[in-house]
Amino acid sequence: MTGIPGLENILNGGIPRNQVVLISGTSGVGKTIMCSQFIYTGATKYNENGVYLSFEEPEDMLKENSRSFGWDFDRLEKQGKFSFIHYDPYNVEDVFNVLESTIKEVNAKRLAIDSISALGLYVRDVTELRRMIFNLSLILRSLNCTSFLTSEVIYGTNGLSRNGVEEFVADSVIMLYYERLQSSFQRALQVWKLRGSSHSQKLHPYDITDKGITVYSEQEAFIK
Amino acid sequence: MTGIPGLENILNGGIPRNQVVLISGTSGVGKTIMCSQFIYTGATKYNENGVYLSFEEPEDMLKENSRSFGWDFDRLEKQGKFSFIHYDPYNVEDVFNVLESTIKEVNAKRLAIDSISALGLYVRDVTELRRMIFNLSLILRSLNCTSFLTSEVIYGTNGLSRNGVEEFVADSVIMLYYERLQSSFQRALQVWKLRGSSHSQKLHPYDITDKGITVYSEQEAFIK
Amino acid sequence: MTGIPGLENILNGGIPRNQVVLISGTSGVGKTIMCSQFIYTGATKYNENGVYLSFEEPEDMLKENSRSFGWDFDRLEKQGKFSFIHYDPYNVEDVFNVLESTIKEVNAKRLAIDSISALGLYVRDVTELRRMIFNLSLILRSLNCTSFLTSEVIYGTNGLSRNGVEEFVADSVIMLYYERLQSSFQRALQVWKLRGSSHSQKLHPYDITDKGITVYSEQEAFIK
Amino acid sequence: MTGIPGLENILNGGIPRNQVVLISGTSGVGKTIMCSQFIYTGATKYNENGVYLSFEEPEDMLKENSRSFGWDFDRLEKQGKFSFIHYDPYNVEDVFNVLESTIKEVNAKRLAIDSISALGLYVRDVTELRRMIFNLSLILRSLNCTSFLTSEVIYGTNGLSRNGVEEFVADSVIMLYYERLQSSFQRALQVWKLRGSSHSQKLHPYDITDKGITVYSEQEAFIK
Amino acid sequence: MTGIPGLENILNGGIPRNQVVLISGTSGVGKTIMCSQFIYTGATKYNENGVYLSFEEPEDMLKENSRSFGWDFDRLEKQGKFSFIHYDPYNVEDVFNVLESTIKEVNAKRLAIDSISALGLYVRDVTELRRMIFNLSLILRSLNCTSFLTSEVIYGTNGLSRNGVEEFVADSVIMLYYERLQSSFQRALQVWKLRGSSHSQKLHPYDITDKGITVYSEQEAFIK
Amino acid sequence: MTGIPGLENILNGGIPRNQVVLISGTSGVGKTIMCSQFIYTGATKYNENGVYLSFEEPEDMLKENSRSFGWDFDRLEKQGKFSFIHYDPYNVEDVFNVLESTIKEVNAKRLAIDSISALGLYVRDVTELRRMIFNLSLILRSLNCTSFLTSEVIYGTNGLSRNGVEEFVADSVIMLYYERLQSSFQRALQVWKLRGSSHSQKLHPYDITDKGITVYSEQEAFIK
Repeated sequence: MTGIPGLENILNGGIPRNQVVLISGTSGVGKTIMCSQFIYTGATKYNENGVYLSFEEPEDMLKENSRSFGWDFDRLEKQGKFSFIHYDPYNVEDVFNVLESTIKEVNAKRLAIDSISALGLYVRDVTELRRMIFNLSLILRSLNCTSFLTSEVIYGTNGLSRNGVEEFVADSVIMLYYERLQSSFQRALQVWKLRGSSHSQKLHPYDITDKGITVYSEQEAFIK
Repeated sequence: MTGIPGLENILNGGIPRNQVVLISGTSGVGKTIMCSQFIYTGATKYNENGVYLSFEEPEDMLKENSRSFGWDFDRLEKQGKFSFIHYDPYNVEDVFNVLESTIKEVNAKRLAIDSISALGLYVRDVTELRRMIFNLSLILRSLNCTSFLTSEVIYGTNGLSRNGVEEFVADSVIMLYYERLQSSFQRALQVWKLRGSSHSQKLHPYDITDKGITVYSEQEAFIK
Repeated sequence: MTGIPGLENILNGGIPRNQVVLISGTSGVGKTIMCSQFIYTGATKYNENGVYLSFEEPEDMLKENSRSFGWDFDRLEKQGKFSFIHYDPYNVEDVFNVLESTIKEVNAKRLAIDSISALGLYVRDVTELRRMIFNLSLILRSLNCTSFLTSEVIYGTNGLSRNGVEEFVADSVIMLYYERLQSSFQRALQVWKLRGSSHSQKLHPYDITDKGITVYSEQEAFIK
Repeated sequence: MTGIPGLENILNGGIPRNQVVLISGTSGVGKTIMCSQFIYTGATKYNENGVYLSFEEPEDMLKENSRSFGWDFDRLEKQGKFSFIHYDPYNVEDVFNVLESTIKEVNAKRLAIDSISALGLYVRDVTELRRMIFNLSLILRSLNCTSFLTSEVIYGTNGLSRNGVEEFVADSVIMLYYERLQSSFQRALQVWKLRGSSHSQKLHPYDITDKGITVYSEQEAFIK
Repeated sequence: MTGIPGLENILNGGIPRNQVVLISGTSGVGKTIMCSQFIYTGATKYNENGVYLSFEEPEDMLKENSRSFGWDFDRLEKQGKFSFIHYDPYNVEDVFNVLESTIKEVNAKRLAIDSISALGLYVRDVTELRRMIFNLSLILRSLNCTSFLTSEVIYGTNGLSRNGVEEFVADSVIMLYYERLQSSFQRALQVWKLRGSSHSQKLHPYDITDKGITVYSEQEAFIK
Repeated sequence: MTGIPGLENILNGGIPRNQVVLISGTSGVGKTIMCSQFIYTGATKYNENGVYLSFEEPEDMLKENSRSFGWDFDRLEKQGKFSFIHYDPYNVEDVFNVLESTIKEVNAKRLAIDSISALGLYVRDVTELRRMIFNLSLILRSLNCTSFLTSEVIYGTNGLSRNGVEEFVADSVIMLYYERLQSSFQRALQVWKLRGSSHSQKLHPYDITDKGITVYSEQEAFIK
């Protein structure tokens, strides 16, 4: 169970264990919120400890923003159920080692990496970036974790990820959309791929409330 | 006979023997499922042994996902009718030698390569990638196999393949589409080219069910 | 309180303290006016001193243009509530040191940087530009200021910023639009992202009057 | 007379002697079939011997596919009326010498080169490719042959050729289209240029039947 | 006063003194005519001498074309009210020195540079071009002139200038459009930015008559 | 007088003497025919000798194609009224010297260069190409000829020329269009720019008949 209300219905029961899930969308769609919710709910409801690796937000900002949704990561940390790792994307040499050891330390079953696009901003060579992402995927497969990876798509482009390579290393792809309907914007979610399982082929609206993300699996989005 | 229900009707009887068939489409259209079905049905129904060369999914994941469709590749392997090869796309030096010897070992008549786009992600030089794909095509023509090659098209682009070169080495091209119709998505298949034979010029819907892919050759897709 | 009439309503109460806010839009949408208004109102109404770092307009031009809106930055400067820094974007080596010391000098709580796109015009290497913007974001987070950064989007492109990287270092993104409706143009504003808080998801019209920018939070823009 | 039924009417009597004709279109439109038909009909009906230079299909595949249209190139070869040349596009150093001598050997009046795009895939340097194509055109003009050159256009692009240079060396350009009309695809042909002569300015449908290509010069395509 | 009939109304009184105004549009919209008119009317009606720096048209051509509008630049030159500078865009080393000294010589208050895009055609390095344009802007600000700079936009692109950088150094931007309405083309003008002042937000038609450019400030363009 | 029936009306009397006119359009619109007609009519009707510099068609092909319109360039040549120059675009070192001396030899008042795009195909360096075209323009201005330059636009692009630089060196620009209207194509001509003179702002249809190009100045094209 992902812990995102409504998402399970769209996934026909949830993400298969140990998969790598790509969460893609433009700036502002709520990728960080979805990751936090996935990790927090895992630790509090499903007894699955978690690790959050961030290349963007520092620890205090993630925690403060999470508190506004009622998620107390400090408490989880004290209980040994959660660990936060922050890396400057310019200095990532040992990040995967630290990631592995941290996952073992907290006996994590859930992992969020936010965002792998940030890596792409600072790695000078595209081929090297791909190798890095590929190596990451090998590590992820060996970790026995269900992982959420975020990718920040540039607004106005159509790809499933920023670098067009992230979806290669992902078993499943969930796209978050923020589309203009006349003078307002609507949020919608689409499961694009779910390896080894069927899934809803519809666009479903979602909201960001003070309890986090809720997906309306019974509704369809963008019906004009 | 490809073993994909309905596809034969669209192909006016099937793929001519020993052809190289390109299976193209974006992430999530079911290219891996179509390849697995082609290989599995060949070995179990048409007495044509098969080889599956993967640059993406490892063996256990392919097998596990296949089991959800009722395809037991382990059994085939024990019967000597199937062999799985997995290659890290970064270390492909001897892949074609291994491919040739494996095909001889299992006396394969069917081959799936999933995906040749993965090669393109890691080869630094476009000209070298083309030569590699070209060399692959020479080998394929000498193998007396009917081959399915997959190419992952980037969503939002219009090409028949990721690198715009894969269709050159293919005798036939089958495109898998996943298109948005208002708030839901529809799957459809189109035979783009079939060397030496006529074929349906229509877009046909298909489904991914718990028995694999079924093509509705009597129906037309995207009729609004 | 930003000091932009109407903007508070759209932001559901204002920008969270110490955030980095990206103000993006094409040439002529009023990014400089919005920054000036943010800084001036902060110092005069909310007792928050300010610093304006410009890579484009020289001091006298900013001040003269501001006077036409009734904003007297000279007076603020004499009162020790404001400081203006102008940098040639070709010589930015020590800009961040100067910025830090100036912020301390005037005990600033508000900062405007206009524009970070100008940096991108003169830095030869994209990777270096990204590092510079990234380093800037680290400094900004340590300064205890609420910052407005402007980015000049090229007309006809769809991105949230000029270089596709500015939104990475921003907590919040406000887009200013200038769109053609038949034979005239209309101004509209959209909050794209507001980290840690909900916000209006509508496009709201705004005007540039002789008192600065006013946002019509009760109206919706581009309704045809 | 080209030997393609219906094409003559559109060309107002045929291709002027010794011209270089570019046959352009995406993968699967029938460029190889049109070339084969041009060469075969020339040798059997109009007493004009032919040479087929292929950078793609090997000899046996071309011959086998041709047999399905009733064209027996083996017989032509034995009669000294036809010669097939196949070149690996990676080793083309002496191809033009071989081409010249072969044309003299069979006293050819018709030539097909399928495809010059294949050259572009393997030549690393664009300027060099252009020189190669330009040199080819000089040779073609000296050969006293009517030549069909094919160019494979990438689907979703709009050009008259793959490299945007092939049409420079051609006297005439014939485009083959394969366009989607709702849920099915339609074939149509358009004479784009015909140096020294007028031609139909309409889009005409064509079919690939078991006798080869037939153009419906009395009909117009894509009428909705 | 610019001296372009109707333009004042759209600018709500004219260009603020000493500003740099970008005149942008595709080939043929009348950028050179607008500059000539601005310079000529300045010297004859508003007692503001002028300098015309051309990187394109030589002196005699500008003068001859101007005569067809009744503008006698030769006479102005003899009166010491005008000076023309022509530079080969390949040899621009000392152009800014010459520009400064010429402006002092004729005590110019108006300057036209036609076109700064021409610089971009011959400068090999984009970063260098930007530095050149930036340096130009510094000089312009020190000259106490109101300047018109032209930029030739490539037809079919959407930018406000050819190089996407010219608008950075301009205080104001006026776009000239030439748009197709069914089978004829219509001219229209739009003030895109006017630093320190409000302006019409409409598209206004204009004409090129035998008296130069006239803007119809009371009318709106492209109303279908 | 250009000698193209109907064109004069659109140009309000013709091309001003000694101008450089760019004739732009995709492959097959009739640029070569328009140049031939301009040169031939000049020599036979208006007593203006001509020179035709071709980087594409060899002499015999141009002459043969011209004969089909009734234009006998051989006779003109014998009368000393015309000279044809053909250059391999790879060897253009002395082309401008030869051009100058040839123009003097035949005392030419008209010049056609077909096509300057061909230069762009073979010059490796864009900056160098621009310098070459710029130098060409300087020479043309010194020759006291009215010149027609052709530029072959790539189909599907929107520019006024192939390299986006040709229109810089041209005083006037005439675009030739070949646009699809449902299932047939229509030819139309548009004067885009005419330095020093007004011109029709409409799209006018034209035909290529056995007497050359005729423009229908009283009609408008593409009226649906």
